[in-house]
Amino acid sequence: MAAPRTGPSAGPSVKWRLTSSFPKSLDTIYGGAEQLADRLRELTGGKFDIRVFPAGEIVPGLQAMDAVQQATVECCHTASFYYVGKDRTFAFGTTLPFGMNARQTNAWMYYGGGQQLLDEFYAGYNFISFPGGNSGTQMGGWWRKEVNTVADLKGIKMRIGGLGGAVLSELGVVPQQIAAGDIYPSLEKGTIDAAEWIGPYDDEKLGFYKVAKNYYGPGWWEPSTCLQFFVNKKEWDKLPKEYQAAFKVAAAEANVTMTAEYDHKNPTALGKLLQNGVKLKPFSKEIMDASYTAAQKIFADESAKNPAFKKVYDSYTKYAKTQRAWFAVAEMPMDVFNQAHR
Amino acid sequence: MAAPRTGPSAGPSVKWRLTSSFPKSLDTIYGGAEQLADRLRELTGGKFDIRVFPAGEIVPGLQAMDAVQQATVECCHTASFYYVGKDRTFAFGTTLPFGMNARQTNAWMYYGGGQQLLDEFYAGYNFISFPGGNSGTQMGGWWRKEVNTVADLKGIKMRIGGLGGAVLSELGVVPQQIAAGDIYPSLEKGTIDAAEWIGPYDDEKLGFYKVAKNYYGPGWWEPSTCLQFFVNKKEWDKLPKEYQAAFKVAAAEANVTMTAEYDHKNPTALGKLLQNGVKLKPFSKEIMDASYTAAQKIFADESAKNPAFKKVYDSYTKYAKTQRAWFAVAEMPMDVFNQAHR
Repeated sequence: MAAPRTGPSAGPSVKWRLTSSFPKSLDTIYGGAEQLADRLRELTGGKFDIRVFPAGEIVPGLQAMDAVQQATVECCHTASFYYVGKDRTFAFGTTLPFGMNARQTNAWMYYGGGQQLLDEFYAGYNFISFPGGNSGTQMGGWWRKEVNTVADLKGIKMRIGGLGGAVLSELGVVPQQIAAGDIYPSLEKGTIDAAEWIGPYDDEKLGFYKVAKNYYGPGWWEPSTCLQFFVNKKEWDKLPKEYQAAFKVAAAEANVTMTAEYDHKNPTALGKLLQNGVKLKPFSKEIMDASYTAAQKIFADESAKNPAFKKVYDSYTKYAKTQRAWFAVAEMPMDVFNQAHR
Repeated sequence: MAAPRTGPSAGPSVKWRLTSSFPKSLDTIYGGAEQLADRLRELTGGKFDIRVFPAGEIVPGLQAMDAVQQATVECCHTASFYYVGKDRTFAFGTTLPFGMNARQTNAWMYYGGGQQLLDEFYAGYNFISFPGGNSGTQMGGWWRKEVNTVADLKGIKMRIGGLGGAVLSELGVVPQQIAAGDIYPSLEKGTIDAAEWIGPYDDEKLGFYKVAKNYYGPGWWEPSTCLQFFVNKKEWDKLPKEYQAAFKVAAAEANVTMTAEYDHKNPTALGKLLQNGVKLKPFSKEIMDASYTAAQKIFADESAKNPAFKKVYDSYTKYAKTQRAWFAVAEMPMDVFNQAHR
């Protein structure tokens, strides 16, 4: 039953479906799409009504983009890097190993031409995109055994996908594709040796600490993980201008508040994990350096053979370099000092 | 002349005035209020129409809050810490010396009860607030001479206000209140020895580097500077729910995009400054440590005599501590590693 009209809007009734790549249990991420839909109804007196479906109800989570491309649904909430199997250029919408942090990513997307470059690429897939939430730097996952050297990585079966998996594969890791619900039993049985997921809040809920005590950080394959709303271009063009503005502004709100929500939830969850005997460890310098070098090789190889990748990579890396030169002056020294005094 | 109505909205016509604490020349900050107003017109087919006035046209910049309190205007765009002369509790809406960074501030405001605590305090002044843009960590200003030790600070006349000025005053600095337009000539003549302003983008435009070559960082008195929209509570309550939602979401958008815009603009401006022979320097550990200690003393003294301050301070500092414990695990090590490899 629709809520009674109490507000002033008198726009056309527009009913859309949004397929999320995520289950409801990932409440912070899934909630970003619900927040967008709620806000759009609020802004339009219920007239622009997007129904949000969890992964699997309309299409599987990893086919959300295809559903938008084919106009099975008007829009989705996903992570572009799920589609690197089609083209590695899809990585940039979400993150890159050793890439920019959340603030730098927003700067590139909103002002540095990033979103525009991506939309040019996405035009071949019939959709446009909006940043729609960022988790910040993720964790380096749960490991049954300690790893200190690159030699320790040899033969490790790890649940990890995308470019992070490709990089680790250069170091001898055997990446595994495993759905969320199967990670815990696989870790428990020892079918896999390690698994990366998200960060303390989501990881704690899945209980990985019970079967793999070593929790590594940082998840250098996701220095910040930007989710996106993808909207079918033809459906977008049909929207009244007010509804386009409403979608855009609601996506920006979801973008900033998801980061804030994760930042709010993760510290408490981290505390719980530590109380449960989790061994928090930084990746060794040897592993970080080797991963960094392997990542650069993959980027160079891909740039040499994929002009679409090269075009976005050149913009991204140049931007990252100038961002870091500035962050080194004020933001980082401030953070470092405050950390030393906490 | 109003733009022709092309959209679907049919809400009541609401005309508000917003007084900004800032001049148009501070285009990134001033632009945050214009962006909000533009977005509200877009969302409502021009019906919710806020006219933005620069500082001085309706009231002087530092009286923006009073104008909202007295309903001279319906809303303003300001920095709450301009009003610490009335009550130091006004600091928290903007920043605290050695306080949280922009992301942590957003987490506290949106999810950590920060905005709610502030609005309880602001109720005594007849308004409610929304975060409306954050510059990130600001710079430590322009100094005619090098300062390396606390002894070097003795007698330094510096353009700095608020709690930062109070802290530096403990170390022998003589804080000066000087309007933006008077900083350059005062530095040039040597009437003052140092002046803090914002960061590379805004500082470069005012040309301070021509008369004071030493540019220090970080501006520990503003680890992140959150601007706010203040809205008179009675006027807010009169708004249709759609317009309230529109204001709230547009403020959130302005909040995230202003940070992105500053992050985008500052690196280029920093490059220009360096080309112009600016000497970029970090504050010495001695000065940072002494400033930190002086700040803690001021917070303790104020907490002892001001229950309103204590209430918010306790929430803020507890929150900062848990935020930092988490940022130390993933976000910071990632940033530090990436900085080392840029």
